Amino acid sequence: MREALDRALNQLLEESLRMLSLVREMTQEATEALVQADRAKAQGVVAKDKEVDALELKVENQAIAVIARHQPVASDLRLIFTVIKALTDLERAGDYAMHVAEDALLLAQEPPLKRYVTLPEMGRRLTEMMDALAKAVAERDAALARRVLEMDDQVDGLYEEVTRELITYMMEDPRTITKALTLMRVARSYERLGDHLENIAERVIYWLTGEVYKAPEDVY
Amino acid sequence: MREALDRALNQLLEESLRMLSLVREMTQEATEALVQADRAKAQGVVAKDKEVDALELKVENQAIAVIARHQPVASDLRLIFTVIKALTDLERAGDYAMHVAEDALLLAQEPPLKRYVTLPEMGRRLTEMMDALAKAVAERDAALARRVLEMDDQVDGLYEEVTRELITYMMEDPRTITKALTLMRVARSYERLGDHLENIAERVIYWLTGEVYKAPEDVY
Repeated sequence: MREALDRALNQLLEESLRMLSLVREMTQEATEALVQADRAKAQGVVAKDKEVDALELKVENQAIAVIARHQPVASDLRLIFTVIKALTDLERAGDYAMHVAEDALLLAQEPPLKRYVTLPEMGRRLTEMMDALAKAVAERDAALARRVLEMDDQVDGLYEEVTRELITYMMEDPRTITKALTLMRVARSYERLGDHLENIAERVIYWLTGEVYKAPEDVY
Repeated sequence: MREALDRALNQLLEESLRMLSLVREMTQEATEALVQADRAKAQGVVAKDKEVDALELKVENQAIAVIARHQPVASDLRLIFTVIKALTDLERAGDYAMHVAEDALLLAQEPPLKRYVTLPEMGRRLTEMMDALAKAVAERDAALARRVLEMDDQVDGLYEEVTRELITYMMEDPRTITKALTLMRVARSYERLGDHLENIAERVIYWLTGEVYKAPEDVY
């Protein structure tokens, strides 16, 4: 009975990691689509979001089946709830990667406002956060999950930087306003994606240590 | 046994409705703080967000206890999962009401860009959505939950309207850019708050009818 439950729990974790790896791919490809003005790549990201949505429902139903079949005790339930909550954040993170791709499609129609430097840097940091998060889950490493929270502070810092820069552009030349607002929205999508990864990291820390960690305050 | 479980499930629903009613208060007060440039009221909203956060953890732990104690079957689990997922959305909805209050604090430091009309209208529609959602849950009324989805389309329409108007301001007079961006952020907070209510309505529909309803596409 215990063995069957452990197998079921591991399967839940594996499916969640598969979802995380899909969102990582989406984030990387959305960033490439933005930098290279690659419309086909952007469309590929939009298509992948459907897979993420389907996985969320599938894993959630598996989680319900595990509870109904195995009647797990409180500590196992805690893991299942971690998964359930993380699924929501992963699905939203996928939405934001898709939004970056959608804006990349828009932006690809015209010459860029400038060469993008800080935005792809945000994308790169986010994929690093997802690598660290996957490793933290796979190796039950709470210290690494805490590192993810620090990495998100850096993403927030880059967000502030991009926003300030874009406001300067807008003030100097109001003709750039529409394009600058789209780029601000891209920056915000990255920033929100990071917040969802931070939520997952907080959940993972709680699962591994029982410690309630709420990040002091999100940039918004 | 069944009776004790029903009592426990009803208690979960009641606590969730209490959380919803807190978020409703926060939304209304944040809107009043914005319109009246009332700093004390805005600070009150920020304080209330702590209550919402505490309620989320409390109800979530109750839900885990219900599962551990009563070992509910799949259909009861479905309700518990609805609650668990709705808690996340409610907590985020509260965050957005708080963000409106924070921006109201910022905006209260200077004379307003213009008299606010569409923004308070968004706030009013959101409180109506929350009233309908509470009634839909209390009376197990799936049709009313579907109405909430339509109401969110109206909020999205108002969001587009405010955004277009603010872009016009910015283009006509670049000195308004900073203030207009803050007002855009308020509009976005309302719009995101509506999306979280929409998520909850979708969950409620699923709980009551078993029907997976995903709103076609969120404005973002």
